Parts: sequence; structure tokens; C-alpha cells
Amino acid sequence: MHDLGKEMHNLCHELFPINRSITGEGFRKSLAILGGHLPNLKTVEVPTGTKCFDWEVPREWNIKDAYIVCPNGRKICEFKQSNLHVIGYSVPINKVISLDELQGNLYSLAEQPNAIPYITSYYKERWGFCITQNERDKLEVGEYRVFIDSELINGSLTYGELIIPGETDKEIFLSSYLCHPSMANNELSGPVVMTFIAKWLAGLKSRKYTYRIVILPETIGSITYLSRNYKKMKERVVGGFNVTCIGDDRAYSYLPSRKGDTLSDKVALHVLQYSQPDYITYGFLDRGSDERQYCSPGIDLPICSIMRTKYGCYPEYHTSLDDLDLVTPTGLFGGFEVLMKSIECMEYDEVLFSVVLCEPQLGKRGLYPTLSTKTSTSNVRNMMNLLVYSDGSHTSLEIANIIGVPLWELKETIETLKKENLITSKAC
Amino acid sequence: MHDLGKEMHNLCHELFPINRSITGEGFRKSLAILGGHLPNLKTVEVPTGTKCFDWEVPREWNIKDAYIVCPNGRKICEFKQSNLHVIGYSVPINKVISLDELQGNLYSLAEQPNAIPYITSYYKERWGFCITQNERDKLEVGEYRVFIDSELINGSLTYGELIIPGETDKEIFLSSYLCHPSMANNELSGPVVMTFIAKWLAGLKSRKYTYRIVILPETIGSITYLSRNYKKMKERVVGGFNVTCIGDDRAYSYLPSRKGDTLSDKVALHVLQYSQPDYITYGFLDRGSDERQYCSPGIDLPICSIMRTKYGCYPEYHTSLDDLDLVTPTGLFGGFEVLMKSIECMEYDEVLFSVVLCEPQLGKRGLYPTLSTKTSTSNVRNMMNLLVYSDGSHTSLEIANIIGVPLWELKETIETLKKENLITSKAC
Amino acid sequence: MHDLGKEMHNLCHELFPINRSITGEGFRKSLAILGGHLPNLKTVEVPTGTKCFDWEVPREWNIKDAYIVCPNGRKICEFKQSNLHVIGYSVPINKVISLDELQGNLYSLAEQPNAIPYITSYYKERWGFCITQNERDKLEVGEYRVFIDSELINGSLTYGELIIPGETDKEIFLSSYLCHPSMANNELSGPVVMTFIAKWLAGLKSRKYTYRIVILPETIGSITYLSRNYKKMKERVVGGFNVTCIGDDRAYSYLPSRKGDTLSDKVALHVLQYSQPDYITYGFLDRGSDERQYCSPGIDLPICSIMRTKYGCYPEYHTSLDDLDLVTPTGLFGGFEVLMKSIECMEYDEVLFSVVLCEPQLGKRGLYPTLSTKTSTSNVRNMMNLLVYSDGSHTSLEIANIIGVPLWELKETIETLKKENLITSKAC
Repeated sequence: MHDLGKEMHNLCHELFPINRSITGEGFRKSLAILGGHLPNLKTVEVPTGTKCFDWEVPREWNIKDAYIVCPNGRKICEFKQSNLHVIGYSVPINKVISLDELQGNLYSLAEQPNAIPYITSYYKERWGFCITQNERDKLEVGEYRVFIDSELINGSLTYGELIIPGETDKEIFLSSYLCHPSMANNELSGPVVMTFIAKWLAGLKSRKYTYRIVILPETIGSITYLSRNYKKMKERVVGGFNVTCIGDDRAYSYLPSRKGDTLSDKVALHVLQYSQPDYITYGFLDRGSDERQYCSPGIDLPICSIMRTKYGCYPEYHTSLDDLDLVTPTGLFGGFEVLMKSIECMEYDEVLFSVVLCEPQLGKRGLYPTLSTKTSTSNVRNMMNLLVYSDGSHTSLEIANIIGVPLWELKETIETLKKENLITSKAC
Repeated sequence: MHDLGKEMHNLCHELFPINRSITGEGFRKSLAILGGHLPNLKTVEVPTGTKCFDWEVPREWNIKDAYIVCPNGRKICEFKQSNLHVIGYSVPINKVISLDELQGNLYSLAEQPNAIPYITSYYKERWGFCITQNERDKLEVGEYRVFIDSELINGSLTYGELIIPGETDKEIFLSSYLCHPSMANNELSGPVVMTFIAKWLAGLKSRKYTYRIVILPETIGSITYLSRNYKKMKERVVGGFNVTCIGDDRAYSYLPSRKGDTLSDKVALHVLQYSQPDYITYGFLDRGSDERQYCSPGIDLPICSIMRTKYGCYPEYHTSLDDLDLVTPTGLFGGFEVLMKSIECMEYDEVLFSVVLCEPQLGKRGLYPTLSTKTSTSNVRNMMNLLVYSDGSHTSLEIANIIGVPLWELKETIETLKKENLITSKAC
Repeated sequence: MHDLGKEMHNLCHELFPINRSITGEGFRKSLAILGGHLPNLKTVEVPTGTKCFDWEVPREWNIKDAYIVCPNGRKICEFKQSNLHVIGYSVPINKVISLDELQGNLYSLAEQPNAIPYITSYYKERWGFCITQNERDKLEVGEYRVFIDSELINGSLTYGELIIPGETDKEIFLSSYLCHPSMANNELSGPVVMTFIAKWLAGLKSRKYTYRIVILPETIGSITYLSRNYKKMKERVVGGFNVTCIGDDRAYSYLPSRKGDTLSDKVALHVLQYSQPDYITYGFLDRGSDERQYCSPGIDLPICSIMRTKYGCYPEYHTSLDDLDLVTPTGLFGGFEVLMKSIECMEYDEVLFSVVLCEPQLGKRGLYPTLSTKTSTSNVRNMMNLLVYSDGSHTSLEIANIIGVPLWELKETIETLKKENLITSKAC
């Protein structure tokens, strides 16, 4: 099963060098690579200028090359070395300027002198370079040539959408974003883990829920998607996750939906509590990704986040240090597992009803020890507890929480009791 | 009042040696002794084979004698020495067998080498002997004669039922069980304390509630009783207790109903908090007696348990060490007292209404000091507090909890305020 | 602004020497002084014998002089030195008595030997003197002349009422009492701070709420006032405070309404938490002032108390030590400030609604940084948080609590977002 971790890490490697932004060829190329794993992934293009609620789709940005030539002729901040060197959405420039003027367009991190920061300016035209503090400190007085071969054109915003049908048209919604250039935890781990979750879902014999899976640019992408789909989503979506920062080896983290008690929240807390009890709980005030849109007033989708180390909470965040050493096969696999378990719990969750009044006689069905001694086994306890709470007012997930056993460990007992016609169930 | 403790202990002594099981002559004889204290106790017989929900009444078991003869001619495991030596519902046998074969039918406790365990096999035919580990370790290779003079016949299951009428047909339900052979806390303390509670109730001048009191075999008895009575009980029963393990000198214990917030739970917590604050709280997951049936889905009676040391939670449990040294007159009397207080609280509990707007002028009624100084007495505080919460949305029990005074200490103040026409009341 | 503290302290000085009681000339004179600050304050007289719920207005008490002449001719307990020397509502007397008889009519505090206690006997006719323990201990055997020149006549009970109109007829109710003679925290601080609050309210350009402000004698005054006004008050009053013990330099204190979750409680807790986090929380069981009436069953006004050191909780309480050293300009000003902030929060509180779906594009309005870096400012965070909880189910006060920012710090952001047409509001 750990092969899955390696496969996901390999896919990250393949995607890592591509220059992505909220629009443009890098995004399209990356999406096509994920589409290679997901044959039914549909690519959608939304033209520049399209109105999306309070926003409109921006111009498309593409870039071929960029660098700075120092007074001594040395090239620095080469885009081809690291696409983080150029501020996202930089306008083209080709000009000789003084060190003073250059400094006004340089960005570095004094506290992380060997990191290139990740900076963007989507909605205000500017140009700029990101550079390590160490390199910046070495710049000498003189004339610098700054060169950015980019373009901002009327084009389109691209996203991917995959619908995996289930027994009902109630939906689980999974969303991740692909607009970050060469960084690994935030953000290649999200779309890569979600791609493998989608493959696993598509391979299942049956699914109770239909799955709506989208790969977008962050913020403008989710706003664009919602503006075209939110009405039917509000009717259908019963749960789901924003999939991000899910590939490193550190903490598991939970960030609630705005309402805090949706099915997604309950499932996330159950899975983390029983499989990763050291997980960190954040509040909705700590949000910072597309749950900002999915949980906004009037949208109100039941979406929360299960992460490993949360965006903003690790030193490598939004710098060149967020790389493929930080994200590991085991980290990706752990993230995959908690997401898979969470989806399984949503699939398993149903209202349970006892069929007979009082305790049934389990002994005559071979489900109870024939000898009454001082102690009873945990299996029998679990079965009795499950039966006594199957009163039509609790779901299987709620019962699992009450009796303190993970839902996945109760699944077999539930099946046995159904087969014996001792419990029945109803969709939540 | 401690004479009551001795009377109860004497009754335990009288009942102790009788061999009881879920059916049979020992149960009938024991019930008749309790009936000597409760003239209106009705004995009910339910024939073998009667369907009771998912169960049916088993055959009746009676036993005259049992023992093992050792190779050297010595008799061991003599039923007449201790009826725990024979597994409950053992089929008859009279046979010479090897030590090896014998071992497969012996039960002992390695960790309690001088205790005879209590074992039953109601629903699978087998035979067996229970023996101390010390004695078992002395057995030598050779031929053993095993002799059990028992019978399993079509007969009936026996239970006792006592209805003590009150002013309304709303009922308090009290249940205990009498199916255990020679053990004292679990279980002679329960039926004995409940018998004395019934005597006390029958002797009261008036009762708000009708009392339904049953003495049954555990599990099959309560299932049988419910199968014949649950419909009217669901309409009438407003509270009650499963009375068990209530005679030793150790902890007081509370085990909630399944819903956890019934009148019975509220009363039990109030009484224990204010009279036995060191009591232990268990969860419904720790259940193990007839609340398993009374609180099952679709039955849902408001029944919880007030115990001293709970079944399963003391080393002597279900062994020959659970004897009349463990159960004491003070232990039984303490159990009697918390049950009595709990029933009194249910009788006292009612919705209270202030009659006048704003504080009444207590001074002109002689209920308030005429001199206003720095401090006020707790009596006056309690009276003012009672008045201010008598708003028609709180019961006297709730008010007692809010103001932090046991209900029995407020009773006199409530009567005074009623007499002064400052509060009125309504049944809950 | 600290001048306000001095002004309030000066007003306390002016009022301090006047002998006040629940009726009589001292109360009238004190009320007239406050009326000098509040031109629209209406004085109401309610005749002796008027029925008020369970009470009736007592006779009016006035006193000119009182003292004791010792065997050696020395005058002690002179009313003109301290009006606390005479028990409130003492009947007239002029008689020579033995020390023994005198002792039965003296009141002192053994634990505070240099304090004169404050004692009253409104509803039982008696006479008596209050004396320091030190002085009492010096009394010698002999004949004492006791002289009290007081009268109990059919007159009236006096109170002041001020209505300051607002945009709606929904009311905020403020109440304080003026019936205590020469004491400072309990009670001149209350009516004095409330008078300055009323001046501030009257000077505001606009008020959402109408303000009903009353200055009464405690208990009988609030009962009298309610008996004439409670029906319309129950319809109109949405919040308010009993203003008492609000002038010393020690703790801030909160005493809840009986229901505990009214607008007043929410506002008091918000203001104290964010401006005086070391405040002390009492329970409604600790009540002792006019909230006893305002929160009584059937009256049920949403009134709680914000105090500095609560009545009964400081050693000087109800003695001559509660003086104008204990109450200070800073103490009074601090009390004024928390009350003012609380009233502002009630005025600000309203239900908020986001206007656009998803996050609005704040950048195009100049409300968001154009450069996306690792961090965001608290201003922007607050704005985003405010928007995301403006869902029509939260008031601004609730949002302030959720996002952990005092409402007064959010006011400007709310105004900005309204101006940008990004949120709208509705009265609670």
C-alpha cells in the first residue's frame, strides 16, 4: 500500500517544475497530467472578463523567461532556475536600471535568508523579482538589466471537473487547487492526493453518493465555479473537503466548516480522533483557502479541511523551501488514508433501527457466549451497545462516537446484525 | 432506625442458603419469604415455551444434590455445602470419568484461588462444577465419579408483582431480581432492600404516584414481564430504579438511564450529590442488569440504578466471597436511605408558581427579620430564592439544584409558602 | 475626560451629608440636586398607604435631631455628627434610662470597632442608636438620656423619572436608588454615575433606543414604580442595568439577570471581558438590590448589574467607613466608562447581512493589499471575518465575540462595509 505513497510522490515530481498560476499554460499542462490519471476529467475554460459574483475572470498570464543581469554580467533570479523568482502576474519589462530602483522591485525574507519567497500581484499591474536575502545582500552599486518576457492577454481561466456517479444524486464535494508554482505541500500535495482519491472512488464497485471533484485555481477559481454551480450544489452536496497541505510528515490538522457541525466536520473529527489522536484543531477564524468561499453566507456548503501541516503554520510555507523533501511518500500516503477513511465514514453513515423489542437472544444465533462468567468480550459489548443505541434517532457515526469505537471497526458487526435481521437502516 | 439495617440483614440470612435460579423451586421459596413481608405481593407463573419478544421461557430447572467423588473416596464440590459448586442449569449426570475429562468441566479462578466462581449455562445444555483453585490444584490422576441429580422440565418461570396504589395512575417502577443462588450483594441486597422500601411505601398515609414493584429473574424475567406489560408501562411510568448491589459498605454508585436525563436520573443525582457526594458515576455503557431491557429502544422506560458497589466492580463479585460479611446492616440501611430519599424527591417534585408580583412582603407575615443589618440568614435566603425561581418553568427539584439546597431541606419552606398563599404548584 | 471623575466626586460630596431614607425630606432634597443636572427629571410623589402589589407605601419619616446624654453630661451618638447614629425610621423618644436598657437599643460591630453600622427598621416601630464598638465599650453604669426628634407621618414616597426619547419606543431601562444616608459606594456612586450617564445620553445627536431612567428608594421604590409601569415596560424594555456600587477603585463585578442570557447580560460580559478582563462574576443567587424586583417572576425585565465592588463584598459595606475616600474620581470614572460602553454596544448591536455571494473583491475598493505575501494584517482579517459571519443569523455583538474583537473596535469597519454596500443591517 506504501507503493501508493511513492506513486503520489512521483506525480508530484512530474508536476513540480511547471510554472503554474491562476491562469495560463502551466495550469493547463498540469491539469492535463492529472487528467492522464482521471479519464473522465473534464476541462473547462472560462473567458477573461466573465462576471463571477463580485469578481471577473482576469486576463491570462503567460511567461517564457525572466532574469536580472548584474553590473558584472552575471545572471541572477533566473526564471528557468526557479519560477518563484518572478512575482506572479508580473508585466513584461526589459530595461536597465540602477540598484536603487531595482531594490524597490525585489522581495526577500530577512528571517529566512536562503529562501525565495512566493509573491503574486494578480489584480494590480506591477513587476518584481523574488530573491534570497543572502543573494540580495551581495548586490553592488551599478546598473542592472531587468528582463521579463511575459504577457497578459484576453484568454481564459481553466479548471477541471470530474463527476463520479453514485446510487443517489446527493453529492460529496472534493476541491483542490493547482495554481501554485514550484512548491510541494502548498500546493501539489492537495491535487495529487485528491487525484488518487478520485481513482480509488472510481474503482469502487458501488458508491452511495455521487462525487463532484474539482481542480481549480484558488479563490478566483472557486468563486468562478460556484457562480456557475452553487444552486444545484446547495441542493445536493451533503459533505466534502477542501484538500490542501496534505503531504508532509508532521501533524494532522482539522479546520472546521463555518457552521462547525456538518457531516464533514463530524466525520473528520471521528477519523482523526480514532486514527490520529494527536491532530491539531484550528478554528474557522484560521481559514485561508477555498473554504472561505464554500462556507460563505448564502453559499454555506458543508465543507471542512483535513490537512497535515496547515498553510501558514510551517516555516517553509510560501517559499522555495516547501519542496519535495518536505513532502514525502509516507506523508502523502497518510493524508490519502485519512481522506479515504473520512469518505468511507460518510458512505457508512446511516440511521439504525433495532428490529426486536428488548435485547435479542444473541445466543441462539451463535453471537453470544453460552457460558455466563464474570467478564464479557469487547466484541459482544460492541454488538450489544450498537443494538441498544439503534433507536432510529442515532446514525451509525453517532453510535460509534457514543460507544467509543471507530466506525470502520463496527462495519462488520453492523453487517452481521443486518443479515440476522436484528437491525435495519435508513439514509441519514 | 438502624434496627431496619439489622432486620434487612436477618432477611438476607434467611434467604442466603436457598438455591435460586431463573426458574424453579428455590426462586418460588425465596419469593414466598419476601411475600411474608408484603401481603399483597402477587405470584405469577409463566409456562415454559411462552414467547416473549425474541425469547421464550426456558424449561424449569430443579436440583436435589450434586458432588464429585475423588479416587480416594473423598466427596468434593458438594452442592449441599455450597450451591455455587454446580453450574446453573446443569443437566443430570452420574458417571465415572478420568481426571482429564473432569478438568474440561471444572471452573475455577486462578487469581482468586479460594473463591468458588458463579457460572451458569441457561441456554446451552451442559454440566459442570465450580471449585476453588486451591482444591482443584490438589486433584490427582484417577477416576472420578460426577453426580448431579437435577432435572429440566416443562414448568414455568415465576415472578412477583406488587401494585401499591397512589393518588394518580402515574407510576414509579421498582424492579429487582432474585435468581442468584448463595451470594449477598449481587444478589440478595436488591430484593431485600426493595422489600423494605415497599413496606415503607405501603405504610405511608398517601402517595402521589402508584408503585409498580416487581421481583423477577434477571434478563429473561424482565423481558417476560415487559412483553406482557410494556404498553401500559410506557403510558404510566414516570420514573423508577433497578435495585441491585445495594448492601455493602463501600461506594455509592449511579448508573444512568439510556437517555440520561429522565426524572429518575435527576433525582438520583440530586440525592447522591447532597447526601453521598463521593458517589461514583458510571455510564450507560457500563450497564449489566435489567436496565438493559428497561432502557432498550422502543421500551424506553425512565429507569436508572442507584447502587452501592456496582456489579463487576468488586473482587468478590460472582463468587462465593460475595457473602454476608460483605453485606452489612449499615450497608443495607444506607442503600435503603438513598432509595427512600430518591422516592421522596419524586413525590415532592412539582412545578412551582409565585402568586404575587415582585417580592412579597415577608415581614408582615413574620417570615423576615424586622431589622435590616449587614447579613441575612440562610433560611431567609432559601425562601427568597425559592420564590424568585417559582416562575412556572421550574420544578421544585430544579430549584433545589439551582439554589444548591437538597429538596428535603426545602420541603418545610415550600409548605410554609403554600400556607401563606405565596406559591402554588402543579404536577410536573 | 478625568475631569468627569472629579465632577462626579464633587457631586457625591454635595450629597453626602444629607440624611436620606426611603421617604422624607432628605430624599427630596437629594433628588432636587440631581435634578439640577437633569432638567427634564420629573419628581413623582406616591401617598402613604398606596397599595403596590403585596406592599403599601409606608409613612414618611423625618428627623431633626438625636443624641444620647451620658451620666457625665457628655453627648454621644449625635445625629448631627453622623446620621448613621440613628436607626432608620426610629420613632421619637425623650427619656432617661439605665445603661442596661440602653444597651438593648444600641448596635455596634465587634469586628469593626471603629465603624458605625447602618441599620434600619422600616416596617416595625422601634428606636435605636448605632455606635462604634470602641465608644460603646467606654459606657459606664448610670442614667442616660436618649433623645430622638423624629416623626412618622402620612406623607408620600418620592421618586424621579426621566424619559429620553430615541428613534424607536423600545427602551433601555436604568435604575438607581438614593435612600441611603451618609455612605458613598453603597450608595451615592450609583445615582451620581447614572446622572452623568443620563447627561451624556441627552447630549447625543441621536439614540436608537428610548431611555427610561429612574431614581428611587430601594425595594419599596422599585416595587412602587413597577406596580404603576410594569405592563408597558414588559412590552418595551429590551435591556438595562441596576446601577449601584460603582465608585470605588477595586474590582469590576457582574451580576446576571435571572435568565442570564438577555441582551444586557451579553453586553455586560462583552464590555467587561474586553475592557476589564479581571472582573468578578457573581450569580443571581448573590443578588441583593433592585434586580430582585426587576427579574422577579412575571416582571422578568432584562436587567443585570455592572458594579465595581459589589454590596456585601467589602468590609466598609453598610458602615460609616463607606466614605468619600473609598469612592474616588477614578473609581467613578471607571464605572461611568463601562456603563457608557455597555450602552453603546446596545445601540450598535444589529443583525448583519452580506450583500454579495462569496468574498467580495476588496482589492478593487482599496480595502485589500494588492500584493499577496505570507501574512495579512489584523485589519483585513477583521474585515473578512466580519463579512463571513454577516449571514443574517448573527448580530454585530455576536460576531464581535466570535472573532474576538470588542464591538467598539469593529464599528468603523462596519461603517466602511455599509458605505461600500457590502453589508446591510436590520434591528435585532
